[in-house]
Amino acid sequence: MKLDVQTLEEYGSVLLKLKMYPYFDIAHYILMCLAVREDIQTYQSTIPNFHKRHPLACYLSSMILCFGGGILVHFLLGEPILEDFKHHQNLVLATACWYLVFFSPFDTIYKLIKLKPVKITLSVLKELQRSRKIYDGVNHGFHLYPNSFIIIVVCGAIKGAGSGFLTIIERFNRGIYLPNTNETLHPSFATKGCLLAAIAFTLERKDLLNVSKAAMFFGVATIFVYVKVMSIFFKSFDPIVPFENLSSAVFFGGIMDALRKASRNQSAVNQKTKENKNDQASVDVDSKKIN
Amino acid sequence: MKLDVQTLEEYGSVLLKLKMYPYFDIAHYILMCLAVREDIQTYQSTIPNFHKRHPLACYLSSMILCFGGGILVHFLLGEPILEDFKHHQNLVLATACWYLVFFSPFDTIYKLIKLKPVKITLSVLKELQRSRKIYDGVNHGFHLYPNSFIIIVVCGAIKGAGSGFLTIIERFNRGIYLPNTNETLHPSFATKGCLLAAIAFTLERKDLLNVSKAAMFFGVATIFVYVKVMSIFFKSFDPIVPFENLSSAVFFGGIMDALRKASRNQSAVNQKTKENKNDQASVDVDSKKIN
Amino acid sequence: MKLDVQTLEEYGSVLLKLKMYPYFDIAHYILMCLAVREDIQTYQSTIPNFHKRHPLACYLSSMILCFGGGILVHFLLGEPILEDFKHHQNLVLATACWYLVFFSPFDTIYKLIKLKPVKITLSVLKELQRSRKIYDGVNHGFHLYPNSFIIIVVCGAIKGAGSGFLTIIERFNRGIYLPNTNETLHPSFATKGCLLAAIAFTLERKDLLNVSKAAMFFGVATIFVYVKVMSIFFKSFDPIVPFENLSSAVFFGGIMDALRKASRNQSAVNQKTKENKNDQASVDVDSKKIN
Repeated sequence: MKLDVQTLEEYGSVLLKLKMYPYFDIAHYILMCLAVREDIQTYQSTIPNFHKRHPLACYLSSMILCFGGGILVHFLLGEPILEDFKHHQNLVLATACWYLVFFSPFDTIYKLIKLKPVKITLSVLKELQRSRKIYDGVNHGFHLYPNSFIIIVVCGAIKGAGSGFLTIIERFNRGIYLPNTNETLHPSFATKGCLLAAIAFTLERKDLLNVSKAAMFFGVATIFVYVKVMSIFFKSFDPIVPFENLSSAVFFGGIMDALRKASRNQSAVNQKTKENKNDQASVDVDSKKIN
Repeated sequence: MKLDVQTLEEYGSVLLKLKMYPYFDIAHYILMCLAVREDIQTYQSTIPNFHKRHPLACYLSSMILCFGGGILVHFLLGEPILEDFKHHQNLVLATACWYLVFFSPFDTIYKLIKLKPVKITLSVLKELQRSRKIYDGVNHGFHLYPNSFIIIVVCGAIKGAGSGFLTIIERFNRGIYLPNTNETLHPSFATKGCLLAAIAFTLERKDLLNVSKAAMFFGVATIFVYVKVMSIFFKSFDPIVPFENLSSAVFFGGIMDALRKASRNQSAVNQKTKENKNDQASVDVDSKKIN
Repeated sequence: MKLDVQTLEEYGSVLLKLKMYPYFDIAHYILMCLAVREDIQTYQSTIPNFHKRHPLACYLSSMILCFGGGILVHFLLGEPILEDFKHHQNLVLATACWYLVFFSPFDTIYKLIKLKPVKITLSVLKELQRSRKIYDGVNHGFHLYPNSFIIIVVCGAIKGAGSGFLTIIERFNRGIYLPNTNETLHPSFATKGCLLAAIAFTLERKDLLNVSKAAMFFGVATIFVYVKVMSIFFKSFDPIVPFENLSSAVFFGGIMDALRKASRNQSAVNQKTKENKNDQASVDVDSKKIN
């Protein structure tokens, strides 16, 4: 099979025509409820049976993450935050997923999801849904502010990665606040990927890229799925990190720092050499401290 | 006097025609300002004369609670949050109540409110106002989203119990954050009652219940007043708790837990009996730990 | 030169016709980014190179403060929060300022801003921009709610002093929460001044003051600039404090407290005099404790 542009476009248009409801949405909801459950296990293990004692907080937290992207985009655009709950089907589906993840008899569903193959399948579905949400977010932003590049990109990125930013609210809802852990301090690959994908979709939408909509969508979805599957096997797999380090070095003074450090070390060495050649060890220690 | 349906309807329609402004609103504002004052006394007693040192924070906190339901509903529906302050009369009234509760000469008003009969009168008025707010909230939601059961119920419930959910914001405003104390973790009777009342009003509004509007309103108001008055005399009176425990047992695996615990105890007992009959005491300790 | 009303009006109308973009806005953005940088230095000095490690959090925090007034007003009026980013020029300018403040080669820009004359120039520009923002906020509020005095004043005040109120959000974004430090607990002169300026502009707009628009604007701008320049030289210069103490004494029971204290001291003295004239010292100690 030849993987030419036309094939990509065909696959992409198939993906774009897929209905997200119900299977892709189910995967997303299940993984979000799982995230809440695991966050409870990590940070609130001192409260036994948290989800049975505080079902309301647990339910609200799960829903905040399940509908995070939509909620945050509506909030930023001054639209009704409850808009996404106008049609009942999604909320009912999310509620069912929440119930199954937290309260299935003998925890069968939870144990099932934790199995690698099931988790990978769900993650693949979820990443496809994420790509579609970014795509929808960009279209939504384009519809409201056709000339505003920034708002369109923000809509797309937040629609795809909203749940990450809402984690702080969701944790407040469960009665915990963890300083130094939020999405903007430590952006995950999902967040950074959503930003890049939103930029790509926006450029395509504004006809600034010589790529078809379908091919672009296929590319974005493939990358998200690939990175997600890899990160299930290898902890903290993030292909953007090298580029980040590079751009950090170029833009945020990394090179400057390196130069300054080098010159300072050099001058320190020179000074020491003039004075006394014995205490070379202490220079090393100094230069390490500067690091 | 015969308490038949017709009498209920008559009482209910009288209640529905009552003007909330100013007496019922005054009762609500006074009790909300009192709640702020008592929260300061409980959690910020290390700062003497908090309300004199920080009148702005104190005022804003009081107003957040006084107009909590409206603010939160407007926020969730994408309406202007300041909408309720368009007409000055309510804000002026709330400001006067705030001033009297916090700064009346020789604290006479505060001492007066703390008297049981006065507090009961105010609470009765406040619960009637709460019932009306839920009713108005349901109508507001129905007006905007006539087909969305969930949004209508949420509007009604939040309109009635909004101040509970805003307590976390109000406390941030006063410079404190109390983890593990928020409305979703420990919902009060008011919150749960508002949810049930909103569901009841919504069902009536959609003609799914064979009850008239007035009779339904009378019933809801009576229950709120009854529970409130009882809870002033008996601490933590909450008629929903038994139903909660039941539904928790049915839906959230309480029965499963009981069965599992029983079987585990049984097997532990069996094992022990086989091995040694002496250390029965330790079994009891174990079974207590599992509880 | 005679400083009569006509001259004031001429100066004021010149100020009102000044374009804020780009120079005045640059001054505002630079000082806001500087505020973020200094807040990091004060409270997050344990994390070396915070701005290089967490550029996203640092950027978002800076933007929240740069556009704080607009964001908060849009939020309170139910308008799209992202509205101000519709036109790119302001965001691009703010981004450039942020970059220069945090990452200029050898920190030249930062060192430059810290020089007194540069800081004073920037502050003067910023205070003129603040006055204009209050003026614009009042007009915006007047346009939406022509009859609502309160909303108009709040719009003006928040537009001018929004960044102060958003500091708590901005700090959450950087992963810290400082209890007992927020704008409503310890309102700065900027906040109080903005409130008074908004009231003045609103009264003028409603023709309740016999002052022209231009003269009023000139007066407000002069006061803001004067206080700002003074507060750079003398720490915590705040001309409102005496009036605050006075109104606190009148309205918040300061006089009552003084009377009560006096009467209590007096009665303590009387009691002591009757019993024994020896231990006068302890009375002094007591009266000090009551203070």
